[in-house]
Amino acid sequence: MNARPSTTISPVIAPPVIADAAALAEFLAVARRAGRTIGLVPTMGALHAGHVSLVDAARRDCDCVVVTIFVNPAQFGPNEDFSRYPRDLDADLQRLASHGVDAVFAPTTESMYGPRHATYVEVAGPAVPWEGEFRPGHFRGVATIVLKLFNLVSPDRAYFGRKDFQQALVIQQMVADLDVPVEIVVCPIVREPDGLALSSRNFYLSADERRRALAISQSLQLAKELVAAGTTDAAVVRRQMLDLLAKAELQVEYVALADPQTLAPVEVIDRLSVAAIAARVGATRLIDNELLGPEA
Amino acid sequence: MNARPSTTISPVIAPPVIADAAALAEFLAVARRAGRTIGLVPTMGALHAGHVSLVDAARRDCDCVVVTIFVNPAQFGPNEDFSRYPRDLDADLQRLASHGVDAVFAPTTESMYGPRHATYVEVAGPAVPWEGEFRPGHFRGVATIVLKLFNLVSPDRAYFGRKDFQQALVIQQMVADLDVPVEIVVCPIVREPDGLALSSRNFYLSADERRRALAISQSLQLAKELVAAGTTDAAVVRRQMLDLLAKAELQVEYVALADPQTLAPVEVIDRLSVAAIAARVGATRLIDNELLGPEA
Repeated sequence: MNARPSTTISPVIAPPVIADAAALAEFLAVARRAGRTIGLVPTMGALHAGHVSLVDAARRDCDCVVVTIFVNPAQFGPNEDFSRYPRDLDADLQRLASHGVDAVFAPTTESMYGPRHATYVEVAGPAVPWEGEFRPGHFRGVATIVLKLFNLVSPDRAYFGRKDFQQALVIQQMVADLDVPVEIVVCPIVREPDGLALSSRNFYLSADERRRALAISQSLQLAKELVAAGTTDAAVVRRQMLDLLAKAELQVEYVALADPQTLAPVEVIDRLSVAAIAARVGATRLIDNELLGPEA
Repeated sequence: MNARPSTTISPVIAPPVIADAAALAEFLAVARRAGRTIGLVPTMGALHAGHVSLVDAARRDCDCVVVTIFVNPAQFGPNEDFSRYPRDLDADLQRLASHGVDAVFAPTTESMYGPRHATYVEVAGPAVPWEGEFRPGHFRGVATIVLKLFNLVSPDRAYFGRKDFQQALVIQQMVADLDVPVEIVVCPIVREPDGLALSSRNFYLSADERRRALAISQSLQLAKELVAAGTTDAAVVRRQMLDLLAKAELQVEYVALADPQTLAPVEVIDRLSVAAIAARVGATRLIDNELLGPEA
């Protein structure tokens, strides 16, 4: 096995790092032969407590927990932050220490996308609005890498955060449509004490931006309160959310109130709905969401 | 298990038919637990000796042979022969009898493509020329259904005929790009004694068309002979092939001399190459190919 213990991390608690697919297959074959169930937590690194909550959920459900760390070029647009996306494997391993991770799979870009790579997974349906509109090709890249990781790991369960609400729907759609034998587990959003949803991209924020970014979770909270207090007109709720975001001088990409299965816009919030926001705070694009309505 | 022995076929020799994915999973779990390797032969039914040769190859290599029979709507164009494609499950089971098939998976269209199906696998590279040009969307449908069947069956090996040369390349590309854990086995073309490549679509041919269709395999044979006799100019070879096809009044879609890995056209046949033809004989579209050159 291609273990690479960092010199700065105790090998006793840091998970072993596997860099190549053959070594991963060998590791997994041993686990499979022992009858162990496998939980996969796919990440792009820059790990925070949100990721750790996925690991902890996998640890509770599965015998063997595999975390993948791979900044997937295919899901970034040409003008997005692929090159400056935070990468610090040692910090990530430190973050995972003592959380019972059995292996970290951290492949190279070249090993995941060879020079003749020509196959992509295209999801329509829930992938079309929201991020699909503002990040063309994003979900194609996400679906492709996630399917590759599913094929490399053959997990019994895979864990995704509800912060990327649409992503979780897209993965579920792909898994159902392609008959992928995996259970998708979607875990709650983890927030800072003041409400900001944890995101690797929060690292980009200046102190001022960090303060203004709060308007995102606050406007979702406002929507929740309005609906809980009896407002059912989605246009009214949306208007108040936009006002709050405008006050913080955020550049809104979308504020949506929608059916949580199809993402079709709702006009009357009389059943479970999702409120979702994408907005730029300076150069940093953030997303967040909350469930609203009767069963939320 | 959802076995459906036909009344006209001895249950002793006819393979059991499984119609739903849950029953298939149960069947396969038993085989897996017993440590049996699984060979998959995906077909659209209308089975002939070409398909049977794939089954026999799977039987030699694998402990458990699963044949799938599914006429996949996603790989037919709007003006193609989906609705009239030959379907006769009893005849197919008869054809498979005594060939040691452990199960036939024959799902309904509705169970394979639900009303909200929204995910497709797109392969570029080797899928672009030839059939990709004349049958837009065809390989998208092929790649999608084959990946679904791979996910449903999790075979160790899957068997494809070299008659669909480009299809085999596209599947190999997909498997490599998406890290699908399966070995693709490509089996030789099976021909009638007079040279016509076996195809379910040969059933469509009138006696006259059947005679004229021979020009396809004959022009491939001619190409082989020309190259064996020292002709290396692909344009010369191609011209003679086209002449022979024109004499039989076939409507040629393409005659290609190409690199057998990339399908890039070759001008000089000084290494292993593939000659491929698509042509219409009346309303019936047929394809065929042969390897040419030094190592063929």
